[in-house]
Amino acid sequence: MTDTSLLIIGAAFTPEERSRLETAHAALFAASFAEVAALDSATRASVKAVAFKGHDAFSGANMDLVPNLGLIANFGVGYDAIDVDAADARGIKVTNTPDVLNDDVADLTVGMMLAYSRNLVAGHQWVMDGTWATGKALPLNRKMSGDTVGIVGMGRIGRDIADRLAAFKMDIHYHARSEKQTPDWTYHADVVDMAKAVDWLVIAIVGGEATRNYVGKDVLAALGPRGVVVNISRGTTVDEAALLDALEAKTIEGAALDVFLDEPTIDPRFLKLDNVHLQPHQGSGTVETRRAMAELQLANITAFLGGEALVTPVN
Amino acid sequence: MTDTSLLIIGAAFTPEERSRLETAHAALFAASFAEVAALDSATRASVKAVAFKGHDAFSGANMDLVPNLGLIANFGVGYDAIDVDAADARGIKVTNTPDVLNDDVADLTVGMMLAYSRNLVAGHQWVMDGTWATGKALPLNRKMSGDTVGIVGMGRIGRDIADRLAAFKMDIHYHARSEKQTPDWTYHADVVDMAKAVDWLVIAIVGGEATRNYVGKDVLAALGPRGVVVNISRGTTVDEAALLDALEAKTIEGAALDVFLDEPTIDPRFLKLDNVHLQPHQGSGTVETRRAMAELQLANITAFLGGEALVTPVN
Repeated sequence: MTDTSLLIIGAAFTPEERSRLETAHAALFAASFAEVAALDSATRASVKAVAFKGHDAFSGANMDLVPNLGLIANFGVGYDAIDVDAADARGIKVTNTPDVLNDDVADLTVGMMLAYSRNLVAGHQWVMDGTWATGKALPLNRKMSGDTVGIVGMGRIGRDIADRLAAFKMDIHYHARSEKQTPDWTYHADVVDMAKAVDWLVIAIVGGEATRNYVGKDVLAALGPRGVVVNISRGTTVDEAALLDALEAKTIEGAALDVFLDEPTIDPRFLKLDNVHLQPHQGSGTVETRRAMAELQLANITAFLGGEALVTPVN
Repeated sequence: MTDTSLLIIGAAFTPEERSRLETAHAALFAASFAEVAALDSATRASVKAVAFKGHDAFSGANMDLVPNLGLIANFGVGYDAIDVDAADARGIKVTNTPDVLNDDVADLTVGMMLAYSRNLVAGHQWVMDGTWATGKALPLNRKMSGDTVGIVGMGRIGRDIADRLAAFKMDIHYHARSEKQTPDWTYHADVVDMAKAVDWLVIAIVGGEATRNYVGKDVLAALGPRGVVVNISRGTTVDEAALLDALEAKTIEGAALDVFLDEPTIDPRFLKLDNVHLQPHQGSGTVETRRAMAELQLANITAFLGGEALVTPVN
């Protein structure tokens, strides 16, 4: 057996991130829950905290592999992979890494919207492959400033997105469980009503079962032929089959997506579309922000193992 | 001869733009100044106004091809292709299409900056070509929000860019001939001093001889290894050979460029770089804005031919 207080779980950890954790605490690494199960029982019993990264389901059964577990410290703001009810039932605390990634996610949202509307991928290729030099002009694109946008979810990330889009003179609508304190933005209690009123629909709600298929056929139909769906939340929040139908039939104009139902092996129907801008789930994917997330995850672990108050508890 | 009051000059006009002008006025079209020269002299003498689009030099000699010319109505805000002194000397008025394109140019600027920092072209290709599905993660990118940016030129377009970037919590510096009324932005009388203080350098000055090579070797050296040059003005405002040297040697980090010295046959050194985001001069290239520009050009022509005051005179 190895006496270790911290178990690092997830193939997604980079060498730098692992090394930061291993330097701070007596730690062991497992790429998957299968590798956790393969550890001897005394080693598993010595683990008090888990540093978790990835989208594998952290179920109650997986928690039971680590019988004396007290903390699951998630790398990321979205913790829908972790069964928090099961953690509660076992007296396990869960932490995440909120706020430090809001700027990056909001930046990516606006970047994808501009890349979509101004066709930046095709424009760059037009120059690089010599098409421009032949004298051929890039087809005209779509103006974004001044357009009407609806944000689904006005949490901290939704707000950071809206603040940026307001600087583009966009008419901001939002849908949330309750009206928020905002500038002169328009609140909609009903998401279908909002979809009727806007051209861009930006999804910024949490993932998980409660929001599965939150944006469905009815919302897409209400959005209409100038509508563009922008998703930076989780693939589960959109009825992906309905979205693909709408994109293929052009009952909406297009989509800009950073998240998908099956990542990274996404539905091959996406790859045939010419009215999408797609990103490989890189919402928080900058050097600066991943470092800040790693530091916040470590701060929660160090606080827990030292008997201090958690920095960013979930439950 | 053809008795025509309006001569439309420029291969860049779209069929829709030509037809709008031809519907409003007795008009004749010439793709180039060579075609103008080929018109019979009586036809040329009947022309009172020119609708101009493109970057061919509208010199005094070209003006003399149209002896009774009273107006050159330029399609675009930048009129550096037109010799305004020569027009003045001949009593010819010049108009342009300011303001209606500011939003689009500012949108493209921010879009190119986000496409550069978040590597959106590679990200989109990563998804579309199946690289993501192999499980390979996109390399981490660079955070833009909170960075320091210097705007060269705080005219109406510079201001529209700065207002957007302020929403990204960027620290805004600017260089202009004189200090402007702004929020708590930092004014620099000297462009080299500003380049030392910032990581992003956005060029938003007018083109023409007075600003040729305004951003030269000294500015690029001051910008340093984290520096990114963003040009949406004219290719002439940057010492392009010095910029290419700096990009190749990585004495600056990269560039996002919509304009070049020789468009559309740009310097082939650009096509070998991996630290650039390039666009085919599409600053105002949206359906909505090109229509607004066409309407403003026509409004100037109609005002002139009807003896009314010009809407947006240059001289």
